[in-house]
Amino acid sequence: IAKEVAKLLEMKAQLGGDEGKHKFVLKTPKGTRDYSPKQMAIRERVFNAIVACFKRHGAEVIDTPVFELKETLTEKYGEDSKLIYDLKDQGGELLSLRYDLTVPFARYLAMNKITNIKRYHIAKVYRRDNPAMTRGRYREFYQCDFDIAGQFDPMIPDAECLKVVHEILSDLQLGDFLVKVNDRRILDGMFAVCGVPDSKFRTICSSVDKLDKMPWEEVRSEMVGEKGLSPEAADRIGEYVRLHGGLDLIERLLQDPKLSQNKLAKEGLGDMKLLFEYLTLFGITGKISFDLSLARGLDYYTGVIFEAVLLQQENDHAEESVGVGSVAGGGRYDGLVGMFDPKGRKVPCVGVSIGIERIFSILEQKVEASEEKIRTTETQVLVASAQKKLLEERLKLVAELWDAGIKAEVLYKKNPKLLNQLQYCEDTGIPLVAIVGEQELKDGVVKLRVVATREEVNVGRESLVEEIRMRTSRP
Amino acid sequence: IAKEVAKLLEMKAQLGGDEGKHKFVLKTPKGTRDYSPKQMAIRERVFNAIVACFKRHGAEVIDTPVFELKETLTEKYGEDSKLIYDLKDQGGELLSLRYDLTVPFARYLAMNKITNIKRYHIAKVYRRDNPAMTRGRYREFYQCDFDIAGQFDPMIPDAECLKVVHEILSDLQLGDFLVKVNDRRILDGMFAVCGVPDSKFRTICSSVDKLDKMPWEEVRSEMVGEKGLSPEAADRIGEYVRLHGGLDLIERLLQDPKLSQNKLAKEGLGDMKLLFEYLTLFGITGKISFDLSLARGLDYYTGVIFEAVLLQQENDHAEESVGVGSVAGGGRYDGLVGMFDPKGRKVPCVGVSIGIERIFSILEQKVEASEEKIRTTETQVLVASAQKKLLEERLKLVAELWDAGIKAEVLYKKNPKLLNQLQYCEDTGIPLVAIVGEQELKDGVVKLRVVATREEVNVGRESLVEEIRMRTSRP
Repeated sequence: IAKEVAKLLEMKAQLGGDEGKHKFVLKTPKGTRDYSPKQMAIRERVFNAIVACFKRHGAEVIDTPVFELKETLTEKYGEDSKLIYDLKDQGGELLSLRYDLTVPFARYLAMNKITNIKRYHIAKVYRRDNPAMTRGRYREFYQCDFDIAGQFDPMIPDAECLKVVHEILSDLQLGDFLVKVNDRRILDGMFAVCGVPDSKFRTICSSVDKLDKMPWEEVRSEMVGEKGLSPEAADRIGEYVRLHGGLDLIERLLQDPKLSQNKLAKEGLGDMKLLFEYLTLFGITGKISFDLSLARGLDYYTGVIFEAVLLQQENDHAEESVGVGSVAGGGRYDGLVGMFDPKGRKVPCVGVSIGIERIFSILEQKVEASEEKIRTTETQVLVASAQKKLLEERLKLVAELWDAGIKAEVLYKKNPKLLNQLQYCEDTGIPLVAIVGEQELKDGVVKLRVVATREEVNVGRESLVEEIRMRTSRP
Repeated sequence: IAKEVAKLLEMKAQLGGDEGKHKFVLKTPKGTRDYSPKQMAIRERVFNAIVACFKRHGAEVIDTPVFELKETLTEKYGEDSKLIYDLKDQGGELLSLRYDLTVPFARYLAMNKITNIKRYHIAKVYRRDNPAMTRGRYREFYQCDFDIAGQFDPMIPDAECLKVVHEILSDLQLGDFLVKVNDRRILDGMFAVCGVPDSKFRTICSSVDKLDKMPWEEVRSEMVGEKGLSPEAADRIGEYVRLHGGLDLIERLLQDPKLSQNKLAKEGLGDMKLLFEYLTLFGITGKISFDLSLARGLDYYTGVIFEAVLLQQENDHAEESVGVGSVAGGGRYDGLVGMFDPKGRKVPCVGVSIGIERIFSILEQKVEASEEKIRTTETQVLVASAQKKLLEERLKLVAELWDAGIKAEVLYKKNPKLLNQLQYCEDTGIPLVAIVGEQELKDGVVKLRVVATREEVNVGRESLVEEIRMRTSRP
C-alpha cells in the first residue's frame, strides 16, 4: 500500500506540475540569445566601427522588413533553402524570415527600379542551422552588408569592397587576417577543363566549398562517391585547388595550356589581374590571396567571390597560422536583381557581408581576459543628499540638469544613505556627485564631489551645468 | 475560325505567363514597408533624439530575439492575443514573433534573476492587425521602450517615465501634446462602486479603452448590449469617465463618498496625488491630465497608466484641440515578471513605449512640405580628375583619404567627364572636390574645389587631409 500511495503522490505531483501556471521553460528559443547591457556596450563599439567605415565610403542606408513573401526567397539559396524559417499560415500571404540581406536588397532594387546605389544595411537574419553558440554560430544573427549596384567599369567597385573589409578588420584589431579571393568564372572554367559535366558544376562547387573544413581526401571521395564524378576529373580539380598566390599565380594561369583555352576562365583571370592592380594601388595586397579552393556556398554569385578569415598565431612559436573561421564574405551577383524584374533587366551588383557574431565573440573574450571595466551607462553625475527629507530638492535639481542636457541620475528612495549613493557611483562608474544639503540650499550652492579623488568643491547653482560639462568632457 | 485562333492565342499567352519565371508579385508583405535612404535619414534623427533622452536618464540597453517561445507570450495580451504572428512548426520548438518589448523584458528579468535595472530597448515588434499605413499603423513597427524595474519608494520611477515622455515629445517639436494619466486601481475601484461584477472588470475596461475612438453612447451600448452590464451601472461609469483635471480633481475624488470607501481606489488616488506632486517639481504638470476615461488595452497593467496624444490646432481659429492619436503609452506592471518566475517572485516595473511610426510619419510629411534637402550620405569630398587616364591616381588618392579617416568617394569609371563628377556632387550634396591632373601631380598638389562657391585652391598633398577636415568641420 505504501508503494501504491507513493506512486499516486508522484502522479499527483506530476499532474500538479503540468497544471500549474509556471510549467513553461524559461529560455530563449534554440540558437538565440539575449544581449546584456555589457554585451550591448561591446556590440555598439563594433557597429560604430563598421558604420564609420561604410559612411567613409559614401554609402547610404536602407531597411527592409524582417520577413518577405515566401516566393521572394525561393530558388535563391540552392541546398541551403531548407534552413529558411517559414511563418505559420494564419490566412493571407505566405511569409518567411529573411535568410540574408542580399536577396531583400535585390528585391528592393527591382521593386523600386533602382539601377545605381551604394548602400549598407545592418540587421538580423535567420537560419534554422545547427547552432554552435560558443563559436558564434546562431540561428538569429546580425549581418552588416555593404553593396554597390550599377553598371560600372570593371573591378573598381569589387576592389572597393575588399578595401572595406580590409579597413574594418584592421580597425577592430582582431589580429592577423587573410582575405581569400576567387571568381566563379574561373571555377566554372576549371570544372570544364577538368571534365566535370555542366550539370554537375553547382554540386561539385559545393563540395569544393567544404575544403576549409575538410581535407582534400574527404572532399574528393564526396565528389567521386556521392556525386558520381570520375576519379580522373576529381584528381585534376585536386591539382588546381591547392594553388594560391598573387599576381604571379594569375599570370601563370593565364599561360596555363588548358585554362587559357576556356573563355570563362580567361575572362575571370583577366578581371582578377585587374582587381589585383587596383588592390596594389590601395596598398592592401599583403593580406589578399587569390585562392582556387574558395567556392562560397550560395547559388547567386556570378563573378568575383571572397572570404576573410582570422589567422591564429600558435602561441609563441609561430610556425604556421591556422584559420579560425570566416568573419566576412561576399562577391559579385549580376543576375539576382534580374530574377525579380518582370522584364529580366539586370543590375550588376557586388557586395560584402561582415559576420559580426564571430567578431563579437572574440572581442567579448578579449574584454573578459583584460578585466577592462566597461561602463553600461553614460551618466555624468548622481544627484545626492547627505540628510533626510531632501527628496524634493534632489528631484528639482535632477530635472534642472536633465533640461540642460546633462546625463544625471537620482536614487529612487526618499532618504537614501550618502554611503549608498557613493557606492552606487563606484559600482556604475559615475564620475561626479552633486550633493544638496540644507546649508548648500541656503548658500545657493551645490557640493560637487569627484568620485575618483574624493575632492569636493562648492559650485554656485547657476554655474553647476557648465562645471559638470567641463569636468566630464573628453580630453 | 479567326475568333477561335484569337482565343487560343490568348490562352497560350496566359499559360506562358503562368509558367514564366517572373510570375510572382514584387512587393513587401502586407502591412510592412522598406525604408529608403531618405526615410532612414529622418528615422536616424528621431532615434538619436530618443536614445539621447534615455541615456540622459542613465538607462542601460539590452536586446532580445525577434521571436520567443510561443508559451512565453500566451495569457499576456488578453483579447489582442489573436494578433500574434506564429512561426510554422518545422520541428523543434513552437515560436511566435514578439508582440511588444515588455513581455520579453519581463522574461529576461525572470530568467536572469535581475531585480533592479533601468534599461531601454529599441526594436521591431509584430502585430497581425489591420494596417492603416498612411496613418502610421503597420504590422511591423518599431517600439522604443524605457523601463524601470525594482522595489523603490512609490511614484518616483513613475514620475521619471512621464518626464522622459515629456522631454522626447518636446525635443522632437511635433506640436502641442497632452499626456493622459490614470491608474488601474482607480478604474477597478470605480467599476466596483458603480456595481460592475468582478468577473466583468477586464471586459468593461476594454470597452472604456475605446472612448478615444468612439462616443460614450456607443461604448455604453457595447457595455449593456454585448457585455450584459446593467444600464444603471453603465450610467454611473458614464459620470466618472467624463472627468479629467489635475490635483484639484484628485482631491475632490479623495472626498467622493463612494470612491473614498473603496480600498483600491483610495490607494490609487493617494499615489496619483504623490505623482502629481513630483510632476510639479519636474515642472511638467501643464501637459499632464488625470483622465478617468483612460484605460489602456493590455492586461498586464496593475497601477499607473498613461498615454500621450498629439493635439492638432484647428488651422487659425483654435476653438478646440483634437487628438490625432497616441504617440506614447505605458504604465506600471508589477505582476508580469512574477508570471515567469518559478516561485512567483515579483519585480515591480514601470515603463513607457514611444510609438515611433506615427512620429516618423509626421516628421516625414514636415520634411516633404518644407522642401528641406536631406543628405543621405556624409561624404566630404569627391576625388575627381579633368583628364583621361588618371583612374590609378584617383584610386591612390581616395585610398589615402580613407586611411586618414576622410569620407571620400570616386566615380567608378575609367574616364569620367569633369562635368559629370561636379554634377554628382551637386546631386548628393558633397561639399568638396579634390581634382588631380597631370600638372597637379607634377607640382605635388591637389586642386580643392568648393562646390557651393566654385572657389578653387591648390593644396599641398601633405596638408590635404587637414584642409578637408577644417573645411568640413561643423561650426
